[in-house]
Amino acid sequence: MAVGKDSFPKMYPVPGFKLGTASAGIKTPGRKDLVVMEITEGGAIAGVFTKNAFCAAPVQLTKAHIGNTSPRYLVTNTGNANAGTGESGRENARAVCQAMGQVAGIAGEAVLPFSTGVIGEPLPVERIIAALPMAFSALSESGWQDAAHGILTTDTRPKGASVQLSLAGKTVTITGVSKGSGMIKPNMATMLAYVATDVGLEQAMLQVLVNDAVNASFNRITIDGDTSTNDCAMLVATGASGVNIDELPAEEQASFKSALLDIFISLAQQIVQDGEGATKFVTVHVTGGADSSECLSVAYTVAESPLVKTALFASDPNWGRILAAIGRADVPDLDVDAVQVYLGDVLIAEQGGRAGSYTEAQGQAVMDQDEICIRILLNRGNVSETIWTTDLSYDYVKINAEYRT
Amino acid sequence: MAVGKDSFPKMYPVPGFKLGTASAGIKTPGRKDLVVMEITEGGAIAGVFTKNAFCAAPVQLTKAHIGNTSPRYLVTNTGNANAGTGESGRENARAVCQAMGQVAGIAGEAVLPFSTGVIGEPLPVERIIAALPMAFSALSESGWQDAAHGILTTDTRPKGASVQLSLAGKTVTITGVSKGSGMIKPNMATMLAYVATDVGLEQAMLQVLVNDAVNASFNRITIDGDTSTNDCAMLVATGASGVNIDELPAEEQASFKSALLDIFISLAQQIVQDGEGATKFVTVHVTGGADSSECLSVAYTVAESPLVKTALFASDPNWGRILAAIGRADVPDLDVDAVQVYLGDVLIAEQGGRAGSYTEAQGQAVMDQDEICIRILLNRGNVSETIWTTDLSYDYVKINAEYRT
Repeated sequence: MAVGKDSFPKMYPVPGFKLGTASAGIKTPGRKDLVVMEITEGGAIAGVFTKNAFCAAPVQLTKAHIGNTSPRYLVTNTGNANAGTGESGRENARAVCQAMGQVAGIAGEAVLPFSTGVIGEPLPVERIIAALPMAFSALSESGWQDAAHGILTTDTRPKGASVQLSLAGKTVTITGVSKGSGMIKPNMATMLAYVATDVGLEQAMLQVLVNDAVNASFNRITIDGDTSTNDCAMLVATGASGVNIDELPAEEQASFKSALLDIFISLAQQIVQDGEGATKFVTVHVTGGADSSECLSVAYTVAESPLVKTALFASDPNWGRILAAIGRADVPDLDVDAVQVYLGDVLIAEQGGRAGSYTEAQGQAVMDQDEICIRILLNRGNVSETIWTTDLSYDYVKINAEYRT
Repeated sequence: MAVGKDSFPKMYPVPGFKLGTASAGIKTPGRKDLVVMEITEGGAIAGVFTKNAFCAAPVQLTKAHIGNTSPRYLVTNTGNANAGTGESGRENARAVCQAMGQVAGIAGEAVLPFSTGVIGEPLPVERIIAALPMAFSALSESGWQDAAHGILTTDTRPKGASVQLSLAGKTVTITGVSKGSGMIKPNMATMLAYVATDVGLEQAMLQVLVNDAVNASFNRITIDGDTSTNDCAMLVATGASGVNIDELPAEEQASFKSALLDIFISLAQQIVQDGEGATKFVTVHVTGGADSSECLSVAYTVAESPLVKTALFASDPNWGRILAAIGRADVPDLDVDAVQVYLGDVLIAEQGGRAGSYTEAQGQAVMDQDEICIRILLNRGNVSETIWTTDLSYDYVKINAEYRT
C-alpha cells in the first residue's frame, strides 16, 4: 500500500553525474539490484550517516573513504545490508570497492559502498563483483529512473525529485533519488538518498548544506521509530554547470538552498507515502513550544504511538489517544489546560477536554481523508516543529512478519 | 489472544478488606463494570499514579483525597476513563464520591475514585450512582474474583495473585487484582492494580513499599509504549491480622517484602500475558550495563521496536533487528564488538555479527516457544535490568482499530 499519487517525476540529468544499473541476482534473480554512480573528476560529495551503533560495514567504509580521498564512484546493492557482519563484512565491502576500482581504473579508496536489505547475512561478493562491469557500461547521465528502481527493497514505488533553476544566468539542476519504507526513523540521516547538482560547491559548504537539508527532511520523518543500520544521505556537486555557489549573490544562494531543501523534503515525504502498509500520510505540526526538543518529543510521541497509528488506520477521530500521547511526551510542567489540538482545521480539544464546538462528524470528515494534519498548540513559547508519518495497518504487520530486514 | 495458562488462582480473603461488584450498564448492559472496595477503619492505603500530564479526573481526585483524609472506600468503574474531560470530569468524579459517601455514611473525601475505558467521553454519573447501593450491599471479603472481572476492559482474562505466609507466628495474607491489556507502558505505575494485606503498616512505610514494588513490576512492562492517563496501583494494609511490620524481626520483614513483590510481579506479568493480540510473552534481560538507565534504554528499545515485535509474532529468529534496536538505544560510546545477544540459552550474536556457533535451527527452536527470553550482555558494567513485553500481531491492530480507548 502507499498514499498519494504514484507518478514518477521528470528527472533532469545532472551534467557530470552518471548512473548505471544492473541485475546481480543478490536476492531475486532478474531484479535490478546493483547501481553504480560516477562523479566527474573535480566533483565533490558530502553525506550524513546513521547514528546506529551497529552501523553497517559499507557505512563504516564510506565514512572512512570520504574523508581520505576524492570519491569518484558510489556502488549500491540491495537485497543484503552487510550489517551485523563484523570484520568479514568490512572485508567484503572492501573487496567490492577494490573490484570497482579495477573496472574503472581508479583506486579502491575512491569508491564509496552502500548496502541495503537483510541484516546479518554474508554479502554475496562474487555476484556483485561479476555484475559491476555491466553496471559500469550502463553509466549514463539519463540513468536516474533505472537507479531509482535499482536501490529499492520493500518499497512499492521509485522515489525521485528534480528541479532546474536559473543562477547567474545559467540553468542549473538538482536531481535526487531515495529508498526506504520500513525501519524508518532517521537519526541524522535515513535510508539511502542520493542527490546531485551541477553547481560547484566546496566540500565544507556541501557538508553544511547536506546537514541542514537532512535535518529538515529525513530527520523529520518516522514510520516505525526504528533507525536503520544503513542510513546514508549523499549530496554530490559536479560543478559542471560552471556556476559556483561562492560567486553567487546572497539572493541566488538562498534560491539554490531553498530548491535543494525542497528536493530533500520531497524525497523524504515520498518515503513516508510509501511507508510499509501505509494508508495515510500524516503531518504532525507542533507549535507554541518553549524549545525544539519539547516540540519534537510531542510530535514523535504522537507519531509513534501505536494507539494513535491504529486509530488513523481505522479513520477513527479518537482524539483521546492523541491527548494521552501528548501527556506522556517529555514536556516539563505541561499546562494541559493550555493545550489545543486540531485535526485539519477542526479544533477538537482544549481546556483539558473536548472542545465545545467539536462534533464527531467534523472529526470524521478529516479522518476519512488520505492526508491528515494533526496540529498541536502547546501555547507556551514560539518554537514549532513538523514531522511526517504514517498509520499502522495490518499490512505493516504482514510485511514485517514475512520479510527479513 | 493471550499467552500462558488461563487459570485464576485461589484468592485468600484479606481480613478488614471487602469488595462488592455490580452492573451499572456504563458501556455494555449486564456487564460487571462497577467495583466498590471497603477498607476497615484504621487501615492505611498508599498508591502510585500515572505521570501522564493529561492525568484523568478520578486520578487527580484520588491523589487529593489520599493526602487529606483516611480513605475508607475505593470506587472503580470501567467503560469510561473520565480522562480528557476537563473541569466537568472533575465535577463528575466528585459527584460519584459524594454519592458513595452518602450510601456508606461517611464523607465524600474518604472515597477514592478510579475509572478506566474510553477517553474523552462524559462519565455517565447517574448510572454509576444508581448502581452504588447494589455494589455496596455486595461487599464481602470473598469478593475478589468478581472484582477481578469487574475492573476489566479489553482484557481477555481476570488477573489475580494471592499468598499467605506466617509472620510472628500468625498467618497473614496478601491478595491483589489488576487490569490492563493495551495502552501499557507504565511511568511510575500502570493501569489499575489493587493489592491488600492484613499486616499493619504505617502510611509512610506503605508508600515506600508500593513505590519499590511498582518499580520492580508494573514499571518494568510494556505492551505498546503508550502510557495510560488512568494508571493507578494501590496497596491497602488493614492491620486486621494483628501483625505489625514494625514489630517484626528484620528477617520476617524481608519475607513479607519479598512476598509482596512476588504478588506485584505476578499481576504485572499477567497483564503482559494478556497483552492486546499477544501470542508471545517476552522477557528482555539486559546485563553488564554501566547504569540502570542505559540497561532500560536498551531493554525498552528492543521491546518496543515494531520490527522486533513483528519478528517475534512470526517466530522468526531475525536477530539483525535486535542488533539494530540495540544500536539505536541511548548508550554512550557503545562498543558493539563487546555486545553478546542470546535467544534463550542460544548465543546468536557477538563481535558485531552472527556467533560462529549459531545455527538458524537453534534460533528457530527458541522462537517457536510461547515464552521467549532475549538476553543482552553489554559487557561494560555490573548493572542489570529486566522488562517484560509481547509481540505485535494482526490482532493488536484489529483490537485498536476497532476499539476506542
